[in-house]
Amino acid sequence: MSLTVRLARVGDNYVLVKNSDPNLSPGSPPNLTNAKHSKRNLSNSSLSPTPGDKKSKIFITPNRYAVLASEENETTTPSITSISNHGNAHIPDQGEDSPAPLIYIKDISNYSSFKNLLTNLTGPNGFTCDSGLVLRPKTAEDVSDILKYCNDRSIAVCPQAGNTSVSSGSVALFDEVVLSTERMNNIINFDPVSGVLVCEAGCVLESLMKCVDGHGYMMPLDLGSKGSCQIGGNVSTNAGGIRVIRYGTLQGCVLGLEAVTADGTILDCLNTMRKDNTGYHLKHLFIGSEGTLGIVTKVAILCPSLPKHVNVAFVGLDSYDKVLKLFSIARAEFGETLSSFELLDNTAVTYVESKLHHSCPISNVHPFYVLIELASSQPTVGQHMENVLEKALGHSVISDATTTDQMSSIHKIWKVRETVIEALLKLGYVYSFDISLPLCRFYEIVELTREKLKDVADVKAVCGFGHIGDGNLHLNVVTSQRNEEVARTIQPFIYGWTSKHRGSVSAEHGIGLSKTQYLEQTKSKSAIDLMRSLKHTMDPKCILNPYKVIPAVAASDQ
Amino acid sequence: MSLTVRLARVGDNYVLVKNSDPNLSPGSPPNLTNAKHSKRNLSNSSLSPTPGDKKSKIFITPNRYAVLASEENETTTPSITSISNHGNAHIPDQGEDSPAPLIYIKDISNYSSFKNLLTNLTGPNGFTCDSGLVLRPKTAEDVSDILKYCNDRSIAVCPQAGNTSVSSGSVALFDEVVLSTERMNNIINFDPVSGVLVCEAGCVLESLMKCVDGHGYMMPLDLGSKGSCQIGGNVSTNAGGIRVIRYGTLQGCVLGLEAVTADGTILDCLNTMRKDNTGYHLKHLFIGSEGTLGIVTKVAILCPSLPKHVNVAFVGLDSYDKVLKLFSIARAEFGETLSSFELLDNTAVTYVESKLHHSCPISNVHPFYVLIELASSQPTVGQHMENVLEKALGHSVISDATTTDQMSSIHKIWKVRETVIEALLKLGYVYSFDISLPLCRFYEIVELTREKLKDVADVKAVCGFGHIGDGNLHLNVVTSQRNEEVARTIQPFIYGWTSKHRGSVSAEHGIGLSKTQYLEQTKSKSAIDLMRSLKHTMDPKCILNPYKVIPAVAASDQ
Repeated sequence: MSLTVRLARVGDNYVLVKNSDPNLSPGSPPNLTNAKHSKRNLSNSSLSPTPGDKKSKIFITPNRYAVLASEENETTTPSITSISNHGNAHIPDQGEDSPAPLIYIKDISNYSSFKNLLTNLTGPNGFTCDSGLVLRPKTAEDVSDILKYCNDRSIAVCPQAGNTSVSSGSVALFDEVVLSTERMNNIINFDPVSGVLVCEAGCVLESLMKCVDGHGYMMPLDLGSKGSCQIGGNVSTNAGGIRVIRYGTLQGCVLGLEAVTADGTILDCLNTMRKDNTGYHLKHLFIGSEGTLGIVTKVAILCPSLPKHVNVAFVGLDSYDKVLKLFSIARAEFGETLSSFELLDNTAVTYVESKLHHSCPISNVHPFYVLIELASSQPTVGQHMENVLEKALGHSVISDATTTDQMSSIHKIWKVRETVIEALLKLGYVYSFDISLPLCRFYEIVELTREKLKDVADVKAVCGFGHIGDGNLHLNVVTSQRNEEVARTIQPFIYGWTSKHRGSVSAEHGIGLSKTQYLEQTKSKSAIDLMRSLKHTMDPKCILNPYKVIPAVAASDQ
Repeated sequence: MSLTVRLARVGDNYVLVKNSDPNLSPGSPPNLTNAKHSKRNLSNSSLSPTPGDKKSKIFITPNRYAVLASEENETTTPSITSISNHGNAHIPDQGEDSPAPLIYIKDISNYSSFKNLLTNLTGPNGFTCDSGLVLRPKTAEDVSDILKYCNDRSIAVCPQAGNTSVSSGSVALFDEVVLSTERMNNIINFDPVSGVLVCEAGCVLESLMKCVDGHGYMMPLDLGSKGSCQIGGNVSTNAGGIRVIRYGTLQGCVLGLEAVTADGTILDCLNTMRKDNTGYHLKHLFIGSEGTLGIVTKVAILCPSLPKHVNVAFVGLDSYDKVLKLFSIARAEFGETLSSFELLDNTAVTYVESKLHHSCPISNVHPFYVLIELASSQPTVGQHMENVLEKALGHSVISDATTTDQMSSIHKIWKVRETVIEALLKLGYVYSFDISLPLCRFYEIVELTREKLKDVADVKAVCGFGHIGDGNLHLNVVTSQRNEEVARTIQPFIYGWTSKHRGSVSAEHGIGLSKTQYLEQTKSKSAIDLMRSLKHTMDPKCILNPYKVIPAVAASDQ
């Protein structure tokens, strides 16, 4: 059974609402915190359902969508209209007081494009799913009680921090209980001598930035969503951002953490020491596993000192080869002071100028632009930047450049880099790819994609930008509207090419729900087998963030 | 049955030899590569032997020493003389061609002190154990074949890289097959643009340093044993060293690795991308787990640029409080250019001067000394160092200082820091502790230990030095000879105090064999349970580096 849904604004969020549902109207938010006592249970055998189980529709496989779709003998081709409510027969004991019927999005292979559509409509992070039950524990002990309860009864749980994931890792799909960390938001301690911050998982990144800034320190990560993302979510997704080139990923910065595992065990690995070689480094089971192995409740992070002097340059270059030459020079010359090396192609800059009216800091048009940021304790970085760029100009490595140490100008230059996606969204429908590639191949995929799509009428732009310093490319294809032909053409092409060159199909955004089907193009079979084995060891009932990260086992493999 | 052993020099190494054994004489090294085809098998039930099993002496518990000791009703108090050969009855089918009978060191609680004695006699890494069979595979496929063979037959394997561990993590104890990585020593690739080095596990650290140095890069770690330690061992032990303050631990620097798990599966996680958020970060299962979960065969490491300008200061201070004040100033002022901040107390410097005749770089005596190193792309670091220290002198934070940017003087200053243990070994028997502590408590434990031992006649010195920047203290107690009273007094005291203040009982040296009994003082029960659970999942027959890292399960828990 299919039906259309509308996207309703509820308070500050968007909710998917059945058109026919009178219980939900704009302005009347559902009572999300009301518990439903009759949650549908996950089966213990969820990892290996028998054919009989599938028919009953009570058991849940790691990819429930696929099973349901095959049962109803419908096409599995992604389609934005195949959103269905499975009917009350499958939602046992929904009480009269239920705030709203659950909305089921049927085909998991649709989710990514569906999410893209919503993102295009609402802007990133502009919508939410209605899970029916959101629990907001205040302590790790509360989390433990909840998980113990849910594990005993095989109730699925979707951990949620700031809910800013662009891979849908924190979105509840079916009847998972949403466990929000937002009330666990205390800063426990900041040690101004060692620079170690200890805080609860629900602290918003920006509030932590403010806290440590007052002591002359900074957070080692910075993200566009810093105003709403929470540190527990950052850690659980190993969030990247614009400072990885300088401070590395969270795998290096997180000294310790506390997490609650599926059975409710509170795991105290809240080490605050920089060196601790006592047995297995268990914290890494939770950094980047997107809440599928445990829920992070506290974090200890090593913060670097605030740099006193910052200088930013915006550079124009003739070719990608010259971009690489400049990067080699920058690494060798600027060393530890290099804090950003970001690439934009001319397409990206053109639309930032035409759609958002942010003017390019240098006047002539160049095929490539690079933003270099130096941050240091030494006052000489500005002079050093100028000397190095002058030399590069003399050797024709670069064609033009401007540098500044004025905060207002620095912000203007960063604005050009940070608003590319916003500009592209004004142009049309955006297919966005977050991939890592060896630097020698970094831009080739943009050109190949452009070539591949040159005869597709609807394609308005193919552009590339990203963190050269991290080998992290954001490749974007813009069409006037959602275009199945483009989707079918480019996704396997781009991920296949990335895989062939030992790149990563998700550089910093994680696998979440959107990329489970592409995991096999980055991870070997033995690695995915080991992931499954770890998941089975730590969460045998598969209650933690089901459907995420680990792809469904094909029927033939079960 | 007990017997005495002598320590024989065999080639460049020392081997334990039964006094009565004619097969081994100094100068005639045993043929370590001869295979014995009748290795004793580990039981499948090795994790949970029944009481009956113990009596048979065929089954092996995680701590076989303790079981054997209790059976023979001997004291479990550490004693250097309790070294025994268990007799031929327990070494089935030792062929006529066996190079030498196995030497069994009986009581695991002795091992640490026994190792200390040997270290005092021979210098660190000066002795080896005779395992009877050393395999030196050339490829990961060879390693896979070996592990598959051993796993099928439940034969224990002791992975060994450079064998420079000071926690005895790479020493075979019984009849484990030693699997040496030394022939897997190829540098596979170095990318001078990204700075990523890919190499095999058996590459010696110093050879890698030379390789990347030629491209203007450096290895992110530096250790005293760099001339013989291998990168696979460094990664497996998450080796620390003197650059952690600047470049972090290997958990942040290792981008990917290849490892072979117990059943022979080759796990390809050899990512070379700086960002790769695709599923669980499996590499961390092998970084620091000391070969108990798999054998690392290849490594990809991100190398930082070589700094162009280095400046070193040696500073005298009145009190530990002032050391902390100076550290705060150094972090804030020097920021990213700070590459070392090392503490020495006056006791340490005194013996370096009197025993090794390395003169202290500053003339007056001070209770504390600090070595500060700055390394930068900026030529101004020398001037910056002088300005900051002059100001600190003006505010009476420091009492005296000298700075230099001359390489010969820099080496002389580092020599004072690096030869403390060598000086103490000339003074007497050294009890050495490698602990992490919160900085506010860092030196307190040295004073408390000094106070506790003040009435013990034999104690010649209690001194502390270490990496303040990493919170890593090397606390040393020197007696004229091995002293049971001192051992009984200080070990539980120091580890208990460390535990109480949430420090780490092993900052950088790992758990290995020497510290299994102290693991519980750093790790929570739930963490150790999870470690056991991971071990059981990944190595159910417990063939990989048995007796190491995870403490024996107490009989009452089985």
